[in-house]
Amino acid sequence: MKSHTHYLWLNTKNRYDIVNITPQVEDAVEKSKIKEGLCLVNSMHITSAVFINDNESGLNQDFLQWVEKLAPYGKEKYRHNLTGEDNGDAHLKRTIMGREVVVAVTNGKLDFGPWEEIFYGEFDGQRRKRVLIKIIGE
Amino acid sequence: MKSHTHYLWLNTKNRYDIVNITPQVEDAVEKSKIKEGLCLVNSMHITSAVFINDNESGLNQDFLQWVEKLAPYGKEKYRHNLTGEDNGDAHLKRTIMGREVVVAVTNGKLDFGPWEEIFYGEFDGQRRKRVLIKIIGE
Amino acid sequence: MKSHTHYLWLNTKNRYDIVNITPQVEDAVEKSKIKEGLCLVNSMHITSAVFINDNESGLNQDFLQWVEKLAPYGKEKYRHNLTGEDNGDAHLKRTIMGREVVVAVTNGKLDFGPWEEIFYGEFDGQRRKRVLIKIIGE
Repeated sequence: MKSHTHYLWLNTKNRYDIVNITPQVEDAVEKSKIKEGLCLVNSMHITSAVFINDNESGLNQDFLQWVEKLAPYGKEKYRHNLTGEDNGDAHLKRTIMGREVVVAVTNGKLDFGPWEEIFYGEFDGQRRKRVLIKIIGE
Repeated sequence: MKSHTHYLWLNTKNRYDIVNITPQVEDAVEKSKIKEGLCLVNSMHITSAVFINDNESGLNQDFLQWVEKLAPYGKEKYRHNLTGEDNGDAHLKRTIMGREVVVAVTNGKLDFGPWEEIFYGEFDGQRRKRVLIKIIGE
Repeated sequence: MKSHTHYLWLNTKNRYDIVNITPQVEDAVEKSKIKEGLCLVNSMHITSAVFINDNESGLNQDFLQWVEKLAPYGKEKYRHNLTGEDNGDAHLKRTIMGREVVVAVTNGKLDFGPWEEIFYGEFDGQRRKRVLIKIIGE
């Protein structure tokens, strides 16, 4: 069994943002030289997400608006913010979008359907954060 | 390490639908001859889901009604629909239900609790779509 | 390839509860003697969740309050409860929080960011339930 680990650094310009990280994950799969296996991609932070969806900017705006509706920002809204933080909403928003994805690697490539791409969803950004990419297989 | 990949085609009669795919996943695990490992099952489309829950038809109706409440259908409701689509809601609904599941394989079987079964959740159906099943292990 | 399987039993005092299970998962990883691989942790029940977030009690209360808002308890609210159950809400709540997590194992440890810890989310508790921990790798 082979394995390959890569840490990807991100620093978004906006507090709330969505970034396409498909090329970086494809690079890591290529470097791993793994032909058949599984690729885990996860946020290493608890206020950001990794998810798979369509590479369409309107949809990304829909996602940001929708999580704001389901888990609105508000310093007074969450007990977590009594710790001095104001990012209680970000923990909830990321829970909807998901911490991680697992993607099959087949014939040395991410085994994707026609529109699947991998995104980093940031809900408390403007600082350096990490995504972990781990591929195991043969 | 062994691996086995299977593509499962589905075409639901309804736009919104939930289909039990446990038997097809069990078949793939058996064909893989893998005794200990991990089994990934994911939708290859971005408007449908794969999730694990109870095989109870009332609950499936509850799920469909609930995601409609959290992410209602509406041609005018989503920026994504400015592309000419009307399935903005489906991208959000599938995000709640989940793109994928990872299941342990132990002694050659899906290592399930008493009520766990695997479902395909369709939110923009009535056309051919694919689910990927990938098992790795030994 | 090596693999290690561990079943963790839990019995929460409250119907709705969140329990930190990080130490038990760390133990299983150590016992597995796996240095590089993937660790799956999933609820074996369909009314409870496994998720990763911050070990902060205020946030855990926020989570419980939030899922109650998105999927409120109610004997009359869900078709599933026509079966005689009253836990329809628990199936939905666990869907938001997630059935499972997959964590990278690197240098023999859970490869976590600074604040990541693993939690069991119970939405129909006060009885014995199981979490599965499966590690594969080398």
